[in-house]
Amino acid sequence: MIKPALELAKDFQALYFIADYHALTTVRDKKQLTHLTHQATATWLALGLNPDDVIFYRQSDIPEVFELAWVLSCFTTKGLLNRAHAYKAIVDEDKNINAGLFTYPVLMAADILLFGTHIVPVGFDQQQHLEITRDVALTFNGNYGDVLVIPQAVIREDVMTIPGIDGRKMSKSYNNVIPIFAPANEVRKPVMRIVTDSKRPEEPKDPDECNIFAIYRHLADADAVEAKRKLYLEGGLAYGEMKKELFALLETTFSEQRDRYNALMDNPDELDKILEKGAEKARDIAGPILARVRKAVGVSIEIR
Amino acid sequence: MIKPALELAKDFQALYFIADYHALTTVRDKKQLTHLTHQATATWLALGLNPDDVIFYRQSDIPEVFELAWVLSCFTTKGLLNRAHAYKAIVDEDKNINAGLFTYPVLMAADILLFGTHIVPVGFDQQQHLEITRDVALTFNGNYGDVLVIPQAVIREDVMTIPGIDGRKMSKSYNNVIPIFAPANEVRKPVMRIVTDSKRPEEPKDPDECNIFAIYRHLADADAVEAKRKLYLEGGLAYGEMKKELFALLETTFSEQRDRYNALMDNPDELDKILEKGAEKARDIAGPILARVRKAVGVSIEIR
Repeated sequence: MIKPALELAKDFQALYFIADYHALTTVRDKKQLTHLTHQATATWLALGLNPDDVIFYRQSDIPEVFELAWVLSCFTTKGLLNRAHAYKAIVDEDKNINAGLFTYPVLMAADILLFGTHIVPVGFDQQQHLEITRDVALTFNGNYGDVLVIPQAVIREDVMTIPGIDGRKMSKSYNNVIPIFAPANEVRKPVMRIVTDSKRPEEPKDPDECNIFAIYRHLADADAVEAKRKLYLEGGLAYGEMKKELFALLETTFSEQRDRYNALMDNPDELDKILEKGAEKARDIAGPILARVRKAVGVSIEIR
Repeated sequence: MIKPALELAKDFQALYFIADYHALTTVRDKKQLTHLTHQATATWLALGLNPDDVIFYRQSDIPEVFELAWVLSCFTTKGLLNRAHAYKAIVDEDKNINAGLFTYPVLMAADILLFGTHIVPVGFDQQQHLEITRDVALTFNGNYGDVLVIPQAVIREDVMTIPGIDGRKMSKSYNNVIPIFAPANEVRKPVMRIVTDSKRPEEPKDPDECNIFAIYRHLADADAVEAKRKLYLEGGLAYGEMKKELFALLETTFSEQRDRYNALMDNPDELDKILEKGAEKARDIAGPILARVRKAVGVSIEIR
């Protein structure tokens, strides 16, 4: 997710943020929420986000988001939220879901529309939520005129979902992640647990069916990927060996960033300061857009 | 609603507000929303609200409300909202309701909890919504400790619902109101249309079954009410005469306030100024309470 986002940031004024208030739909522990916020912040920075180029902020520093979310909720039919994939996936498992989870697509719409966003890089799984954003913005504009910018989704064909160690999308909720900034032994363990079939080393294998290869190909250079592909197809490759190679590759690929990450995590005040600076820039953009919305709907228009 | 509210304000520090952003769930016209806001403001003031005693503000001037509403939505089960009477009443008529209407009890909870409110005067029809507020606050405190004040409902037995000209609760949504501040002919028309049975003047009548009497008894003094009651029971009272008397009583009762109302409505800037002053006082109370909530859940705690 971060890699293509940083590439886009070269060509566009990008705004990326830590959705800490959104996390409140599931995280009920104060310390955990703060820690997760710092981890996410340090990860972006360690992987190359330059806060002088990208407007990088924390959702909870932008009160305008929640006001706009209320306005948008009045232009979002409940039926639209009932049909949201993410909600449907949860409601099947848990009848006791909270209203924050249910209305989350409205908050996401506010996160996007508050900044006059033109382009939103989304994964396949977020495509529908962006459709909801567009739908809500079009409904609003249909009533009040050309107030909100209608954003476009950008889905890059070449940046597919990174699979986790079980082959499903890598995600903390699936507990199938490789924690690239953790100490070596915590990286090795999940790598060694990557799910494979039971083919013996000498047998030919389909690399496109292998969960190890699916991760490896995102990290190794093109020549190395090609060489491995051949070895898979010809036979002679042991999954155990391939896992060790992937682990070694993870270690070399991320060693520098891991050091940077650890230095940042030792300095939470510095992280907060970076986010606060970003929030100031974000609010400079948000303020006038929210003022336009307020004026359009007819509530008080005093600048506060 | 206003009469008992102003009585309560003698004994307590009261906060009353114009729910303009809430109105956005149904009012989609900018000018209408502004006009309704000014009308409501002028009505309270004309009927005796003193903005030096009561903290009197406009919801849209308090951005903290919407941020708290998001937090609370994460502690409100969707099932609780599904069971809210007001939502159930609407959803039966209109399948296309918006998310603002659906989540309105959460906004109401924020409106109350943001100010550490101890007592909420509610009509019978709002009792359930206040139960939702208490439920959400208790859930929040159950997780984070004693952060929010749990409010109590105050329902005055002697202040019943005022019936409209059709006998149902007087409400703009039922189109059964008597507009007490309108020009005389606009007051007369609905009074003359009050629904009655077809008993002739000489027949005895039950005053407690009569829609004219139901309104009259709120305005006339105790002796006059008693005299009319007798006349109803004994026979000899024509509904047409009774309507004329009610109209005359409305004219004398509200003539002074109507003049004050009209003067205020001629001065919308003055109304805005009063509301803005009230909002400043309200935000002075809201700020520290929201800061406590932010600290409790673990988002950024910078003072902004």
